[in-house]
Parts: sequence; C-alpha cells; structure tokens
Amino acid sequence: MNTEEPLSMIVNHINVMGSFAFAISGALVALRNKLDPFGVLIVAFLTAVGGGTIRDMLIADRDVFWLFDTNIIYAILAGALTAMIFRSKLQFFQKPIFFYDAIGLGLFTITGVQIGIDYELNAFICVLLGTVTGVFGGVLRDVIVNEIPVVFQKEIYATASIFGGALYLLLIYLKIPNPYLQVIPIICIIATRIIAVTYNISLPNIYKNEQ
Amino acid sequence: MNTEEPLSMIVNHINVMGSFAFAISGALVALRNKLDPFGVLIVAFLTAVGGGTIRDMLIADRDVFWLFDTNIIYAILAGALTAMIFRSKLQFFQKPIFFYDAIGLGLFTITGVQIGIDYELNAFICVLLGTVTGVFGGVLRDVIVNEIPVVFQKEIYATASIFGGALYLLLIYLKIPNPYLQVIPIICIIATRIIAVTYNISLPNIYKNEQ
Amino acid sequence: MNTEEPLSMIVNHINVMGSFAFAISGALVALRNKLDPFGVLIVAFLTAVGGGTIRDMLIADRDVFWLFDTNIIYAILAGALTAMIFRSKLQFFQKPIFFYDAIGLGLFTITGVQIGIDYELNAFICVLLGTVTGVFGGVLRDVIVNEIPVVFQKEIYATASIFGGALYLLLIYLKIPNPYLQVIPIICIIATRIIAVTYNISLPNIYKNEQ
Repeated sequence: MNTEEPLSMIVNHINVMGSFAFAISGALVALRNKLDPFGVLIVAFLTAVGGGTIRDMLIADRDVFWLFDTNIIYAILAGALTAMIFRSKLQFFQKPIFFYDAIGLGLFTITGVQIGIDYELNAFICVLLGTVTGVFGGVLRDVIVNEIPVVFQKEIYATASIFGGALYLLLIYLKIPNPYLQVIPIICIIATRIIAVTYNISLPNIYKNEQ
Repeated sequence: MNTEEPLSMIVNHINVMGSFAFAISGALVALRNKLDPFGVLIVAFLTAVGGGTIRDMLIADRDVFWLFDTNIIYAILAGALTAMIFRSKLQFFQKPIFFYDAIGLGLFTITGVQIGIDYELNAFICVLLGTVTGVFGGVLRDVIVNEIPVVFQKEIYATASIFGGALYLLLIYLKIPNPYLQVIPIICIIATRIIAVTYNISLPNIYKNEQ
Repeated sequence: MNTEEPLSMIVNHINVMGSFAFAISGALVALRNKLDPFGVLIVAFLTAVGGGTIRDMLIADRDVFWLFDTNIIYAILAGALTAMIFRSKLQFFQKPIFFYDAIGLGLFTITGVQIGIDYELNAFICVLLGTVTGVFGGVLRDVIVNEIPVVFQKEIYATASIFGGALYLLLIYLKIPNPYLQVIPIICIIATRIIAVTYNISLPNIYKNEQ
C-alpha cells in the first residue's frame, strides 16, 4: 500500500509528460505531411494515447487512462499547439520528431511495466505491456500518414523498450528508491535510441549467410 | 433517471439506423472493389460496428453494443443485402456511398456523445467519443479496401462530427426537448457534409505561406 | 456446470496449440520478409494472440486470454524459435505457412464460438466471435508485413471459419460428446482450407454478368 500509492502518482505524472512528448512528435509528423489543423490534432492525439489505450483495453477492469483525466487532454492540446506554433522555427523536422519520440518511448514504457506489476502479472508480460505502451503510439502515427513504422526500421527501437522494461524490473528487485527507480531506465531507453540512431547501430543480421 | 431512460432507448434506435446506413455504405464500397459475398458482408459489418466497438472497448465496464443486440446484426444483414440487390440499379456508386456515410456519421456521433454523458465524462471527452464513434467505421472500411480514409480527405469530415457533438451538448444545456435535441445536430452533421462536398469546402490552409 | 468446466479446460489447451501454430506461421512470414529477430518475435506474437485479443476486448468483463496464462507466451516463444531454427530446412516457405495458418484458423475458431456460448450469446454472434478469433491473427500478420490479407484472397478463408463455427453449434445441439465435438469442426476447417487452396476453389463470382 505504502509503496503502491506514490508509484501510481508517479505513473500519472509520467503519463502527462509522455503524452506531451508524443503529441509533439505526432503533430510534427502530421505537419510534415501537410494535414489540416484537425488532422494534426487527431494524429497528435492518436500518437499520445495509442499505446496506453491498447494496454488499458487488454485489462478487463481498467478504464482507458485518458477517459477520466483531463490533464492528459490538455497536455496533448499543448503539445500539438507547441508544434504548430514553433513549426516555422524547426526547419528540419527529422531531429525533433526523433527526439520527442524517444522521450515518449522511455516514459510510456515504464508506465506500462508498472501497471503490469500493479496487476501482479508475470515478469515477461509486464515487459510486454511496457513495450506495447511505448511502441504503439508511434506505430499508429506512422501507419496513419503512410510512413514505415519506426518499429520496423533497422535501428534498435522495440529492443530499447524491452531492455528498459527489464532494467526497471531489475531495479525494483534491487530495491532502488524513487525517483532513481524510474529515472534510470527512462534515461537508458532514451540514450539507447539516441546512440542507436547516431551511430546507426542495429541488431546482428541473421540473414547474412543467405543469398 | 426520468430523462436518462428514454435517451438510452433513443440511442438504441439510432444505433440500429446508423448500422443500416453504414452497412449500405460499406457494402457499396466492397462491391465497387469486387469482393466476394462474404467479403461484402465483412466490410459492411466492420463499417457499421467499427466506431461504436472502439468506443465501447475504451470504457472498462461496457460490453460492445452489438454483442447482446441482435437487431444490430439484422440491420447490418438488411443493409448489405439491400446494397447487393439494388447494386445494378446504382450505376454510379459514388453518390449513394457518400450519402449513407453522412447519415451514419450523423447518427453515430450523437450516440457516442450521449454515452459519454451517461458516464459523466468531461465535455471535451464526450465530443471525442462521439467523433470516434462516427468516424472510425468509415476509416476501417477505407483502410480494408486500400482507399484513402475519408477523414484525411480535403473536405470537412471529422470537423462536421466535432461540430455536431458540441452542438448536441449545447442543446442539452439549453434544455431543448426530445426529439429535437437529437434531430437538430444529426441533420446539421449530414447537411455540413453535403454542403462541404457539394461546394468543395475545406478548412483554411495553414501552409499557404510556405513553398 | 459439469459440462462447462471440461470445455473451458479444452479451450485452454486449444489456445496453447493454436498459439504455437499461428506463431510458426507468423515467424515464417516475418523471416521471408527478413525482419530482425525481435521483429520475428513481435509478428509471431501478434499473429498468435491477435484474434483472441480482439475477441476478449469485445467482452467487458474478460481479461485478454494471455495476460494470466504464461503457457501461451511459452508456446509463442517455442513456435517462433522453431521457425527460426528450422527455417533453413524449409526452402519453400509457402506450403508450411499455409499449413500452420490453417491449423491456427481451425483451433481458434472453435475457442471463439465456445466463449460466445459461455456468455450465452446469440448463435449468429457466437459464430462471428469464432470467425474474429480465427481470422484476425492472420490479418494482423499480413497487414504488418504489407502483404494482401489472406481473408481477401480468392480462396475460401473466412467462409471456412464460418462453416466450422456453425458446424460446432450443430454438433453441440446434437449432443455429440467430447472430444469429437471439437475435433470434427476443427478438422473440417483445416480440410476445407487445404481443399480450397489445392483445387483453387472460390465462392461463386457475383460479378460475372458485369463489364
């Protein structure tokens, strides 16, 4: 009880921050594809809530996280407006999209794992919930605007989320206190993405002996 | 209580009518793409129930609306059969597809907003549920047959649904009685779509100062 | 009660077998498309759990079947590893993918119908739940790797699932005992698929008098 309560509150804060970050990345992708203002808002919304919505639909007694939490809605509106207003300043969108996407991936992965723990699920499935939460917002964003989903690009993406989720479980096992418990795996996921993209690192090629 | 009960029954009637309209639009799109009879039925079904199904999955304690209501299933079968039988009479499918789609959009938007109200959700989120309910059946239909989703076409679509949903909330606030309460926003949504498509009206272009 | 309990246990066993078969078919498709190892695992997972996940999300008080059942996760891991290890032996992937897909379709269709019966749903809707369960894993698999979904190919696919689901209801009505009750429709679905593909059988063409 004593340990559950603060963790749930931290999950709420992380949800708001992650929604803001993913809303910016979604709005920037929509702006690059020249959607109209409502289209930008819809893509920002789907990017921000996509992963968490699928996670919450998987668990029977959970309402979707944004249904009763207007802070999420305001964070998404703020993120989409920020992207629309400062868009002209961002001559080259590629970098900020990637950066906000990495932040969203890190933040949301940890909320997904934590919710798995709250429901006392198997460790495997906790990490899986974290990956679903972190990854599917970006997948929806990319599917909607007909780009190749980030998950299936060469660089490490789902792998970063799986690694961060497993690290979070390890840190809980080692009784690392808040907020290090959350901050360390979040930073590890973001750093993994930045390093993978900067140095063009991918998983070993299992097809190299073929054709 | 006294006002809730009749509203829920009206929602049921609207669901059946909307399912019929969307089933026709779905079946016509499937026929245009020369799917086999079961394919036509599947597309009609997904178009009719897609939006409401996503809405009901978002709310933890709600069964999907068609699970216990066979009238919906019969309405969809009737819509799909109507489209298959009268297809040869409809030399030019474009107009009837658009028309039945507009009716489905109007009817389903209002059921989504009403369900949000029943759960005492925030006004923003009520309108959002209405838009999800109205829009996603048509999106699924178009994604399945690989057409560009209506939502992302130039003409006002999601905007009509958002506008109608907000109008419905306003009319409730003004204590407008049944059935005007529902009929006015439904007709407004349908009319907005017809006017937008007829006169080729779209939202202002936010990219006009760019390249 | 007495008859419900063993049926639920049979559903669990069938779920594990179906997950194994669909995981192999998903992993083989992913390998043919040269995804990296985590990509193979993700496609195997989505193929195996996709249909049942959508089915369970439709029913409000049902947790998704794999959340509390680690046997499913192990079956998927085993299926994906089997496909990765024996891939070099399978020079021509087309046949095994088709074969494991047919097995998954047969097994999962019956679990979906049985769950509809457990919730005392209308016969139509029981068959529909069976088809959703059987079909959507393969649809997700094909959508992810950008292949044309099996459902929309010419040969009988959803039709085989609908036929098998209806046959299962008929056998229950005729009070056929376990395990014949499940084995007969499962084999019928698999055989229908094999015959349809081998002899290139499709539904009658309703467009032949046109164009």
